[in-house]
Formats: sequence, structure tokens, C-alpha cells
Amino acid sequence: MQRPPVKIAVFVSGGGTNLQALIDAQKSGIITHGKIELVVSNKPNAYALERAKNNSIETVVINNKDYSDKREFEAELKKTLKAHEIELIVLAGFMCILTADFTNAYKNRILNVHPSLIPSFCGEGFYGLRVHKAALDYGVKVTGATVHFVNEIPDGGKIILQKAVSVQETDTPEILQRRVMEQAEWHILPEACEIVSKEIYEKGDAYEHIQN
Amino acid sequence: MQRPPVKIAVFVSGGGTNLQALIDAQKSGIITHGKIELVVSNKPNAYALERAKNNSIETVVINNKDYSDKREFEAELKKTLKAHEIELIVLAGFMCILTADFTNAYKNRILNVHPSLIPSFCGEGFYGLRVHKAALDYGVKVTGATVHFVNEIPDGGKIILQKAVSVQETDTPEILQRRVMEQAEWHILPEACEIVSKEIYEKGDAYEHIQN
Repeated sequence: MQRPPVKIAVFVSGGGTNLQALIDAQKSGIITHGKIELVVSNKPNAYALERAKNNSIETVVINNKDYSDKREFEAELKKTLKAHEIELIVLAGFMCILTADFTNAYKNRILNVHPSLIPSFCGEGFYGLRVHKAALDYGVKVTGATVHFVNEIPDGGKIILQKAVSVQETDTPEILQRRVMEQAEWHILPEACEIVSKEIYEKGDAYEHIQN
Repeated sequence: MQRPPVKIAVFVSGGGTNLQALIDAQKSGIITHGKIELVVSNKPNAYALERAKNNSIETVVINNKDYSDKREFEAELKKTLKAHEIELIVLAGFMCILTADFTNAYKNRILNVHPSLIPSFCGEGFYGLRVHKAALDYGVKVTGATVHFVNEIPDGGKIILQKAVSVQETDTPEILQRRVMEQAEWHILPEACEIVSKEIYEKGDAYEHIQN
């Protein structure tokens, strides 16, 4: 008796290039044990929403600015995830920090991609271009990306995959960011997504076990 | 008018596998702008001394335990380096921490290889197997090695080269240590040595400029 693929929600805030990598990986058969059911954006005008629509993936906007406190915002997120029976959440450039209450409810069910080789250049304040600027300022010759489970500590959860990327003499934060995306993030995020989906799939560990 | 190759001293304390990599790189023409003139050990029975002798490289033992304070020990090191007109020092498993007085005297003239991708798993207390144990305990999937200039901050000097190495599920600190040596340290240490030797060589920047 087979169960359906693991239901995945991708959380976005911006351009959604990592979402695109996930969509492409699903099409090309890299992700087979999971299926992107839903794209959740906290920004109404995130281009990631267009990408989802272009691929007939359901979207929902839950704008954190519409909620006076984070608990209400997260309650709405949970309600939406529950309605769609989501089993795995992928943070793909989602610019809200989730509380311990939320991450505990989805323990080992939230993936994040961070644009450095954790534990270098990670934790509070290290996001986006700041990560690459810090790496260049430090003078590293190798950086990369990390996919990890999300817990209550920023970038503190168990590491699933990492991939190294070379730094070049002439790099700017922008150039390095692009290289890390192309050579690392867009590969290891879908791969990690498949690894974790397969585990959930094979354990027969379904939606009902998630504490909501 | 050509100058002779940059005179290199390699500081060792143990087995000297990194010294061997440097000797091999000199033989195979990877290091051409520098020449290993001297191997300095703080341990009288370091096997690295055998390796040097087998390759007709002069050795000297300066045992830190013979000196009541570090300044005297370092004064003896400096005297020896001066006598041999050493222009570049390579720390290859040298287990004594050098003072700021010494590192300032040889600013940008001391190289060290550290068995991780700095800034991960480096600084005080991170040496030898401890580095690899820390990496495995953290759960990283990628580690590596770094060659950097030595300044007064442990593992804090400018990075010259880094190379990434994969971590395997079944790794022990010992297995990981060996892989990092074979796949990273033994390659980037000779390469960095040649890069820095070439710079010194081409600047015509000779021994006399070092502040002793």
C-alpha cells in the first residue's frame, strides 16, 4: 500500500530562485518522494508567487505586517498548513524568523538553506548579502551553502547537506552570492528536500504526527 | 640578475607528513621559487627529523623544555634563522604557540596550515584531532584545510589558500584527519609556499628586510 508523496510548502519572501530550483527538480525527477503543494509568501508582491502560478502551484499570502503579534501570524501559518495537510516546510528566502513555538510544532520538518558553510558566517544578522560581505571581509577562499533543519536557534539545527564554492579575487558580495546560489544552493536544497521527503515517505510518517 | 631561491625553514614537532609533502613538491617542481634550507624541531625525537635527514636537509633541535621562558626559546629560534638567512617559515605541525614578538618580527613570513575551513573550528584549543572531533560533533558535511599567515592571534592571520573536503557518515576524527591531510593539506601547503616564495622572490625582497 503506497502513500502519496510528502506534501511540501515552500515559504518565500522575494524573487524565489530557490523555489524555481525546487520546481525544476520536481520536473526533472530529482524530487520524487515529495510534491510542492503550496507556496506561502509573507510579501504580497514577491515574484516567487508568479513562479508558483506559472507552475500551477497554489499560493497564499500571509503578510506578517497584518498581524499585531507574531503568535497570531504564526497561528495563521499553522492553520493554512493544516488545511493543506503539509508535512514538510522549506524556507526558500523567507525573511521572517519563526518562533520556538512554531519550530517545535514542526520539529525536523522545516528545512532552510543558508548561503555559507555553517558554522562560518551564520546566526543572527547573517542573511542575504551580509553573509557574503562577511566572507569577503574575512578573506576566505572557500565558502558555500548549507541546508539544515530549523530549530529555535538561528541557523542552529542539524545540518543535512553542505557544498563548497570557491571565492575569486575579484568577487563582490553580489557576484559571490550568485555563484553560491548557482553552484551550491540550487543543488543541495532540492537534494536535501528529496532526502527528507524520502525519509518521511518511507517511515510512513504522515501529517497526523506533526504536533499542531 | 637573479637572486637565489627563497630560503625556507620548516618548523615541526611530530611525524612530519606535511614536511614530506613540501619536500615532494620541491622535487616535483611545484615549489621552484623557494628551497627548504632547514628543519627546526622542538622535539628531539620527532620523526620529521628523519625525513629531513633522508633528504639531506639540515636539521636543528631547539627544545622549548630546555628554556625557562619563551623569550629565550624564541631568541634561540631567531638566532638560528638568522644564521641560515631564512626568509620564510612554514609551521608544519609545530606544537608551540609563538609570541607576538616573534610573529611581528616575521610579519607575512610565517605560514601555517590549519585542518579546517577557517573561521570554523579554529583558534585557541583547536589543534590536531580536536579540530576534527569538533567538526564531527557539530555535524558538518564539508570541512577542509586553510593555509594562512601567522600573526599574534591563533589562526587569525590572512588566509592564503583553502580547500574543501567532504565528511562521510562513518568518519571518526582519525579517518577525517587523514582525508583532510591527503586531499587538502598536502596540496595547499606546498602551493601556498610557492605562491609566497614567488612573491618574495619577485619583489627582490630579501632576508635583510626582516626585522630581527
